[in-house]
Amino acid sequence: MKPFINENFLLETEAAKTLYHNHAALMPVIDYHCHLSPKEIAEDKRFSSITELWLGGDHYKWRAMRANGIGEEYITGNAEPWEKFLKWAETVPYTLRNPLYHWTHLELKTAFGIDKTLNPSTAREIYDRCNEMLASPGFSARGLMKRYNVEAVCTTDDPVDSLEYHRQIKESGFSIKVLPAWRPDKAMAVDNPQTYNQYLDNLASVSDTSICSYNDLMDALGKRHDFFASQGCTVADHGVGAFPWAECRPDEAESLFLKVRKGCCLTNEEILKLQTSILLDLCRMNHKKGWVQQFHFGPLRNVNSRMFAKLGPDTGFDTIGDYSCAVPLARFMNALDSDNMLAKTILYNLNPSDNTWVAAMIANFQDGSVPGKIQMGSGWWFNDQLYGMEAQINALSMQGLLSRFVGMLTDSRSFLSYPRHEYFRRVLCNLLGKDLEKGLIPQEEIGRVGKMVEDICYYNTKNYFKF
Amino acid sequence: MKPFINENFLLETEAAKTLYHNHAALMPVIDYHCHLSPKEIAEDKRFSSITELWLGGDHYKWRAMRANGIGEEYITGNAEPWEKFLKWAETVPYTLRNPLYHWTHLELKTAFGIDKTLNPSTAREIYDRCNEMLASPGFSARGLMKRYNVEAVCTTDDPVDSLEYHRQIKESGFSIKVLPAWRPDKAMAVDNPQTYNQYLDNLASVSDTSICSYNDLMDALGKRHDFFASQGCTVADHGVGAFPWAECRPDEAESLFLKVRKGCCLTNEEILKLQTSILLDLCRMNHKKGWVQQFHFGPLRNVNSRMFAKLGPDTGFDTIGDYSCAVPLARFMNALDSDNMLAKTILYNLNPSDNTWVAAMIANFQDGSVPGKIQMGSGWWFNDQLYGMEAQINALSMQGLLSRFVGMLTDSRSFLSYPRHEYFRRVLCNLLGKDLEKGLIPQEEIGRVGKMVEDICYYNTKNYFKF
Amino acid sequence: MKPFINENFLLETEAAKTLYHNHAALMPVIDYHCHLSPKEIAEDKRFSSITELWLGGDHYKWRAMRANGIGEEYITGNAEPWEKFLKWAETVPYTLRNPLYHWTHLELKTAFGIDKTLNPSTAREIYDRCNEMLASPGFSARGLMKRYNVEAVCTTDDPVDSLEYHRQIKESGFSIKVLPAWRPDKAMAVDNPQTYNQYLDNLASVSDTSICSYNDLMDALGKRHDFFASQGCTVADHGVGAFPWAECRPDEAESLFLKVRKGCCLTNEEILKLQTSILLDLCRMNHKKGWVQQFHFGPLRNVNSRMFAKLGPDTGFDTIGDYSCAVPLARFMNALDSDNMLAKTILYNLNPSDNTWVAAMIANFQDGSVPGKIQMGSGWWFNDQLYGMEAQINALSMQGLLSRFVGMLTDSRSFLSYPRHEYFRRVLCNLLGKDLEKGLIPQEEIGRVGKMVEDICYYNTKNYFKF
Repeated sequence: MKPFINENFLLETEAAKTLYHNHAALMPVIDYHCHLSPKEIAEDKRFSSITELWLGGDHYKWRAMRANGIGEEYITGNAEPWEKFLKWAETVPYTLRNPLYHWTHLELKTAFGIDKTLNPSTAREIYDRCNEMLASPGFSARGLMKRYNVEAVCTTDDPVDSLEYHRQIKESGFSIKVLPAWRPDKAMAVDNPQTYNQYLDNLASVSDTSICSYNDLMDALGKRHDFFASQGCTVADHGVGAFPWAECRPDEAESLFLKVRKGCCLTNEEILKLQTSILLDLCRMNHKKGWVQQFHFGPLRNVNSRMFAKLGPDTGFDTIGDYSCAVPLARFMNALDSDNMLAKTILYNLNPSDNTWVAAMIANFQDGSVPGKIQMGSGWWFNDQLYGMEAQINALSMQGLLSRFVGMLTDSRSFLSYPRHEYFRRVLCNLLGKDLEKGLIPQEEIGRVGKMVEDICYYNTKNYFKF
Repeated sequence: MKPFINENFLLETEAAKTLYHNHAALMPVIDYHCHLSPKEIAEDKRFSSITELWLGGDHYKWRAMRANGIGEEYITGNAEPWEKFLKWAETVPYTLRNPLYHWTHLELKTAFGIDKTLNPSTAREIYDRCNEMLASPGFSARGLMKRYNVEAVCTTDDPVDSLEYHRQIKESGFSIKVLPAWRPDKAMAVDNPQTYNQYLDNLASVSDTSICSYNDLMDALGKRHDFFASQGCTVADHGVGAFPWAECRPDEAESLFLKVRKGCCLTNEEILKLQTSILLDLCRMNHKKGWVQQFHFGPLRNVNSRMFAKLGPDTGFDTIGDYSCAVPLARFMNALDSDNMLAKTILYNLNPSDNTWVAAMIANFQDGSVPGKIQMGSGWWFNDQLYGMEAQINALSMQGLLSRFVGMLTDSRSFLSYPRHEYFRRVLCNLLGKDLEKGLIPQEEIGRVGKMVEDICYYNTKNYFKF
Repeated sequence: MKPFINENFLLETEAAKTLYHNHAALMPVIDYHCHLSPKEIAEDKRFSSITELWLGGDHYKWRAMRANGIGEEYITGNAEPWEKFLKWAETVPYTLRNPLYHWTHLELKTAFGIDKTLNPSTAREIYDRCNEMLASPGFSARGLMKRYNVEAVCTTDDPVDSLEYHRQIKESGFSIKVLPAWRPDKAMAVDNPQTYNQYLDNLASVSDTSICSYNDLMDALGKRHDFFASQGCTVADHGVGAFPWAECRPDEAESLFLKVRKGCCLTNEEILKLQTSILLDLCRMNHKKGWVQQFHFGPLRNVNSRMFAKLGPDTGFDTIGDYSCAVPLARFMNALDSDNMLAKTILYNLNPSDNTWVAAMIANFQDGSVPGKIQMGSGWWFNDQLYGMEAQINALSMQGLLSRFVGMLTDSRSFLSYPRHEYFRRVLCNLLGKDLEKGLIPQEEIGRVGKMVEDICYYNTKNYFKF
């Protein structure tokens, strides 16, 4: 019997196999949005165990374990690494049909060469083998990145970050480009005056600017934007819940900013106005530098306050919101486009029910300047799985030009997540293969489709970001 | 030619057939949410005709008949049973692809052994044969329940209900457990002071409490909650349209309650506050007793006022709303979880566009105490059909642990609806069978998948509800 | 190798082939909603080139070209016809999986007999051949309509339109019925007092009425409604964004109308009230005449103000909104139904996430008077493609009676869009064929299914509209 994860995993037709093996699989990986720690890359971190690597920060796995009735002690608590791993091994058989089942075995196969499925009876053997391999040379942070044919990655960095580790990495001569990405969400977090002002003090300090006015804020952010650019950054990323839109005159922005700077709370409407103003100004900076800007919208974060108090953010208690974002997003994009200040933009929606309107929305701001100027991002977070990827690819196909798509990214904190590119590529080739087999795409165009696959997996990204 | 409804109906792969015949089909039915009449079970009701059984209260069929241009006389009017049946038989061929086509023929096959499809030319024969069988011993209310291997059912009961019929059933020694379920929606219906106060008077009377304050209301409901528990109830059910959420201090709840108790109308915002407060307090009762609570949210009810005036509620004029429920639902669950008062909970969304965020939402409140503490309910009402079931199963699979799912329920008023469990099981096995065949699930895991099928069809439910 | 567009395009099963070739393909086309120019039909317009015919007004193609990085000069600008065509030919290979790829090659095949796929290397040959054929007798406006077995079309006309060209066409003895449809959107555009009052002046003039009050407005519209009816019109069409609903007493409607008639701006709430009132009154007219009324809801129009200033409306900058329309739509329909003033109605939703609730909504107002009185319209605009059609057909199938569906329309400005009927028919037959093959529909019912296909493609439409 063939192993579960074999060379034709997910590939249902001959055409799909051809597309994958002769095209997709040959392409390097450009991971243009991730949450890897630059420090860990700079220090070429080694992992003490597969537990650290797999369960140290992966809130997808944590959610599955909680749903499986595992106590928090074995998830984020003080249990021993082996105990935690065993609890995960107990959970894996219950994840059948969940993407974690595929990720887990893809990672075991591609990183460690393990074909067995993980469950309590294989747990000890797999644990020991992984840990043994993790102690060997090729399994450091950088070793894992090289293993997966990665050409470049973009991390996710706050404007106040010194980017010291990016500099160290570059100076070390590491063959993989590790570039910063500008994520100024904290500069928009005006709903909490206390933490916001602390942040501004920090920003003032690193930018050597006193921040007493809205213009000062923009000057300080502008200086950091320049600094990020000087360190090779060409990508911005903006995370919001409901997409903000409320018209805000400059004098309003000024007075609202002064209010929050004095520590006063804004009303919801005022928050929306000030955030709209700040985000617009940030986007104008992106356009001036020719950067790509990404909008991640739709999450509802930290919904479990008991666990937030205990564990803080990014621990598995964020979820999908069901906001109405089409009108504010259209107005926002239009405000930038009207002044010809709309940068290349990627829109990521978290609620898959928004797929079709998002796929339609991007076409409204394609200006013919470059192919695929405005992009629909690939299935994000909760959509980063078989059906989510297919739904995003299909929505984009029906409303836009799949051929011009910049494809996959990991969005991950883990050095083991690169198989998600492989997974995406297999899904993509499988969809195209079915279309070829059904005659929805002419079979004589398979060469063109092969080129299209290479573009989506690599060349479009390369041309779009110009790292 | 094989009959339409044959042993492999809906099963497209060998794996699916194995999963269904060797696992799913062997499991008893636990129907943990239905609208059967306890009185009819207590009295072991006999049916005068297939018209009474099929068309006496089934608003799904009524809607289809109206859409087919059949006059109301033949639907809810005074036409003769045979005439009504004939009109239904005329409609059935027009229901091709509608779930009614499958339900109808599954019921004919499994209850009456009839393989013919229903249409005007077979109507008389089928009518006579069904009526003849209905007059025979095994076709009473209890006979039908036994025919389908039912182990337990939960009805849907108002707090003021005496549960007299449940007691009678129990005392009669009926082999199938017939348990009450607590459905206190009327205790939340503060938007109509007149009917609400009548209801409160009734509640006061049965609970031997005078209801002059919010606390009195909760005392009265608490007494009835205790009484329900004493009669074997372990399940609550709460039906809402848009999910209510507005913070409400105890003193506000008190004053709003007094206002409505005096017969005054509340504003929409006040209604929302008071309903939030009442529902939270009801949920705290559920948690204290270790009950399972269900939330059915999303319908827009009684939209046709002309027909409502004529026929009243539950006659086929309810529909799917498109409310934004993610934020209020998250806030509501969090309010309970924060005080560690969140009972085991099943969330049923009516709008299938909400499937993915609901499947993601449940993970935010899994606390590791029991597997699958928070559940996404199976495709409800308008989603209780092939594509609706598949969509719910797929959403849950991608976001959570399908293995821990408590599976199907009929939600039905009819003693002939148990084939919906069979239908669900076939759909489930078919999806899993396809995954096995495609290699998305390792083929050597078919034994484990068989156990998973048994869990979803029976054991999970048994362990979750502990009837 | 078979050509791409061959006789079994989109037909995956033997049953589908039988259904298509023996049933669907034999049916004439009734295109009950389109945007053809009656003037061009009256004058039997000839096309100077395939560029004019294909790229003169097709904003679908324009959007694709912009997304492909083509400059506006080659889209709506002054480039030569051949240059524009070549840019389109360059874009076509990048439209793989987009519906334009299928439409383009279906049109090349069915109108011009061309089997080659369009790309830069075939562009010149295809351009010359098409232009040559366009110069030949059968390729005028009327020639193209006859080529596609069209029996009747409804154009889309403003109440002030003289319908002169419809009269000319009729008098010319043209064998295809070309009927007007009543589209009074401008009579509702009260959000812009200036353009609204200009429109009212125009309406006053053509209806020989002075419009000084709300009642005058309705009188004027009523006269035009009568006139349209006298010219054979039996269809109304109402386009809205979010569906309007706000209760509005007659005296409020009067005073709001007077306000806007004086040139004053209304508040958003006032606009909503007045629009609700006008639309209700227009719908009452539709009911009195026994017309069919259509509601197209959900677009967000003209979102790119820079391009709107340059090119005006309908140039590819409309998109899908994500409004909550279920409650207002239900209230609106109910307001009409309550007075027994609800005409036969077709609901078209633009956001496919609304498919299921729309499919459920129609059942609430089926009154048994005629089969399928309330219809869910086929996949509209951005949904007029493979997955969009399938999703609409499946939603309708699960919630209503697919058998009673009035089927496809082009909604097009082009004389080359009739292959969309063929495409729809193939998709429909393919879905039904799969169901037959899987045993979801009994195989002995293939005859009945064939009749159902004929009904959906032709007879239902014929009976519903009674042109």
